[in-house]
Amino acid sequence: METYKEWQHAFKLDPNRPIGDDAIEKICESGTDAVIVGGTDGVTLDNTLYLLSRIRQFAVDCALEISNLDAVTPGFDYYFIPTVLNTGDSDWIVGKHHEAVKAFGETINWDEVVVEGYCILNPDAKAAQLTEAQTNLSIDDVSAYAMMAEKMFKLPVFYLEYSGQYGNIDIVKKVRSQLKETKFFYGGGIHHKKQAEEMAQFADTVIVGNAVYDNLKEALRTVRAVKKVKNGD
Amino acid sequence: METYKEWQHAFKLDPNRPIGDDAIEKICESGTDAVIVGGTDGVTLDNTLYLLSRIRQFAVDCALEISNLDAVTPGFDYYFIPTVLNTGDSDWIVGKHHEAVKAFGETINWDEVVVEGYCILNPDAKAAQLTEAQTNLSIDDVSAYAMMAEKMFKLPVFYLEYSGQYGNIDIVKKVRSQLKETKFFYGGGIHHKKQAEEMAQFADTVIVGNAVYDNLKEALRTVRAVKKVKNGD
Repeated sequence: METYKEWQHAFKLDPNRPIGDDAIEKICESGTDAVIVGGTDGVTLDNTLYLLSRIRQFAVDCALEISNLDAVTPGFDYYFIPTVLNTGDSDWIVGKHHEAVKAFGETINWDEVVVEGYCILNPDAKAAQLTEAQTNLSIDDVSAYAMMAEKMFKLPVFYLEYSGQYGNIDIVKKVRSQLKETKFFYGGGIHHKKQAEEMAQFADTVIVGNAVYDNLKEALRTVRAVKKVKNGD
Repeated sequence: METYKEWQHAFKLDPNRPIGDDAIEKICESGTDAVIVGGTDGVTLDNTLYLLSRIRQFAVDCALEISNLDAVTPGFDYYFIPTVLNTGDSDWIVGKHHEAVKAFGETINWDEVVVEGYCILNPDAKAAQLTEAQTNLSIDDVSAYAMMAEKMFKLPVFYLEYSGQYGNIDIVKKVRSQLKETKFFYGGGIHHKKQAEEMAQFADTVIVGNAVYDNLKEALRTVRAVKKVKNGD
């Protein structure tokens, strides 16, 4: 129950990007705590199921981060639902969620659902453009979003998403200082173990995505780097 | 602590509407569980403080429902923060909240803060117009908002606001069926004890506002009507 609260490291795989069986095995057997399945575009039921079936051959936790209702399927340990805090478009805060709950609410197992308060900070990221995220934020702006997630909405997760860009460490530190109950997920621009080590000092969970596709060998090293910082071994 | 969860009846007073000392005494000594101070326009620090000081002469719980940051002052038992679920304007969901938390976050006593998931259903209400609430909703629409409040965002309060109009009883029943943990506040159009009795069968807390100004005698009778339904005496 709620093992996601203990995750220190996770890989994020995009159903819309091809990846070999050998790579999936290495990822799932890397010692990472979880594999999150999610992407911004081209996510379909078919490619989600295909990726799920390959990950499920291993014992690692597996979560679906929902971006497209048509691609939702049973079989995941968790269903992560982003609510984007730094957007002016209400669809990405509560609008699409309302459609989904109206259509499927009675069949949802809410124990498996985890709402993530997203703050998207790389203006060039597809997710930022799609959600019209306001990325030109000060440290105080981001800190206030983290406080809203923790204190106002009591969300289980605050996700600082630099998607494709390595984060501003001062912002990361400030977010860390705001979060006690809400788990701090950090994602973006982690390609080497040094970066993973740095972020692991502050985030509860360090999430490695693109690196898997760009340089798997380096990506796999981030697992041990995070574990070393967290557990000292 | 968290006495608002036990409220069965509350009066809502608008700092921008004149009311006599005698009326305030009758309201506060009526047996109601709480007085909520709040309005849509013309709420200032001066008129809020004036109303607060007069209510505070009595022992009843007193909450400020925040509509204007300039009017926020210490001295209330609770600070209710509405987040409007059925609006397309993100300012009323998280935007104004972000400004407030950025400005005052570090000084807020979060134990006194209660976030209300609002669903505003009377299109003619000032609150609906101000927040651009989408009021043309089916039972399933409203039910989904209630489910989001309870299951997705785990909000402490879902506030079905018919402000100035008596609610659709089928919608009220449906909302009741969705809420277990989240408290169900109902407000709108309660002028007589029969209406209060009806809503008390479903809502956790029945809130009486305009009736206080229109016909105080009838408004005061709603307290006993609600208590009778709730406690059988």
